[in-house]
Amino acid sequence: MTNWKELDQKAKQWVEEAGELIRNSFDSALSIQYKSNPNDLVTNMDKEVEQYLISKIQETYPDHKILGEEGYGDKVESLDGVVWIIDPIDGTMNFVHQQRNFAISVGVYGDGVGYIGLIYDVVHKELYHAFRGEGAYMNELPLPKRDEVKIEQAILSVSPMWVTENKRFDHQLITPIVKRVRGTRSYGSAALECAYVAAGRLDAYMTMRLAPWDFAAGLVLLEEVGANASTLSGEKLDLLNKNSFFIGEQSLHQYILKEFLVK
Amino acid sequence: MTNWKELDQKAKQWVEEAGELIRNSFDSALSIQYKSNPNDLVTNMDKEVEQYLISKIQETYPDHKILGEEGYGDKVESLDGVVWIIDPIDGTMNFVHQQRNFAISVGVYGDGVGYIGLIYDVVHKELYHAFRGEGAYMNELPLPKRDEVKIEQAILSVSPMWVTENKRFDHQLITPIVKRVRGTRSYGSAALECAYVAAGRLDAYMTMRLAPWDFAAGLVLLEEVGANASTLSGEKLDLLNKNSFFIGEQSLHQYILKEFLVK
Repeated sequence: MTNWKELDQKAKQWVEEAGELIRNSFDSALSIQYKSNPNDLVTNMDKEVEQYLISKIQETYPDHKILGEEGYGDKVESLDGVVWIIDPIDGTMNFVHQQRNFAISVGVYGDGVGYIGLIYDVVHKELYHAFRGEGAYMNELPLPKRDEVKIEQAILSVSPMWVTENKRFDHQLITPIVKRVRGTRSYGSAALECAYVAAGRLDAYMTMRLAPWDFAAGLVLLEEVGANASTLSGEKLDLLNKNSFFIGEQSLHQYILKEFLVK
Repeated sequence: MTNWKELDQKAKQWVEEAGELIRNSFDSALSIQYKSNPNDLVTNMDKEVEQYLISKIQETYPDHKILGEEGYGDKVESLDGVVWIIDPIDGTMNFVHQQRNFAISVGVYGDGVGYIGLIYDVVHKELYHAFRGEGAYMNELPLPKRDEVKIEQAILSVSPMWVTENKRFDHQLITPIVKRVRGTRSYGSAALECAYVAAGRLDAYMTMRLAPWDFAAGLVLLEEVGANASTLSGEKLDLLNKNSFFIGEQSLHQYILKEFLVK
């Protein structure tokens, strides 16, 4: 039997230690490597943080599986057992260019069910955390269940990329949404954008392609505040593959799906 | 003769005191008033902060003029003499919805020349400040002169609104820029977006319509780091009227104007 409460304590501790590693690195120079795509930056710190988290998990829980962005984890083909889904630095471009607006994201799932979600805004020392059935928090502050939001009052996070012609999704479906909402934002970290929807700072967020480690922790937080999550077609998200991604306050999420996205 | 150094010290002190007022208000309930447009939120705190700053300025400098968003200042028709251009809360929608990502913005001009720029990120206690000819800072940290940035490496702040059809500007001129840059962001506070360009967190920022109090402080910061500022047509900004607005690292700003905006 998994002791989820103990696991939660350890996960929080490791995430905070990893955050400390990152904060300390800001005094020394960053060395940046470019992956195949120049937009896909990877830093030595990304790797170091992933290895730190993986070594802690493997030492303590040798039978758990780990799914992570940098690929030092396991080849995970099913969600059976306990699976840690981690992104050491979500928002790498922000990390490199801004040294802020990035987060460590750790979701822990048992047989496909999300038990623990941790999103750590390292620079501001804000840990967004949720434990299945016990609500979501920012540090010690409980995040209330989301109240109904009308589209005219909503703040939507969406990148300007997705309202220009692109190969992933018909931008003409997105454009009328942007015109209806009160305001739009774009922060460039899916994990933080999930945390902001959970915290009520954003009412919805949509993007065309995310990997499981970008949103695994976020889903646990969103579940606890009663927000919805799906693909842009309203389908269930797949935690083993890339997905389009759309989250929001429940009534707003349903309204946007029905009126704009799924026709 | 204006003692600009003394004025700078006082302005900083008043801005920090006003920030303290705002932070203290977060425990008590916000009362929100709607102006004519639901997107144009104004809160009691906006008014209180403006009145606080105005009373300090008028007590100490009765012959200075004040140009401010809420209209409790003077009717300013020229930039002769010393003019304070203030926005008590830039990013009101963020203030209301997020209680973050807003700033107090204070620019002080002498006969039309920017001497002092203060942008205070109240929640994070980060004061971006510049004094003419003496460089720009975030708190005690100097902000270096901006190095050349190629468009493919650039992070551009632009709202998704402006890449959809709108009545202010031909969105088809903006779309190809969004496709060329490395990434886009949108924070919803022009003052903070100016501070971020000065601090190197963004490389450029464009929007269709700003009032002088949205950017007066920002211009002083940008000047000190060698960044450019103009309208979207490349013209000089007018500090007495609304403008379209485009700022960026110098070479990037020139490149985007020439290749995309002014044809």
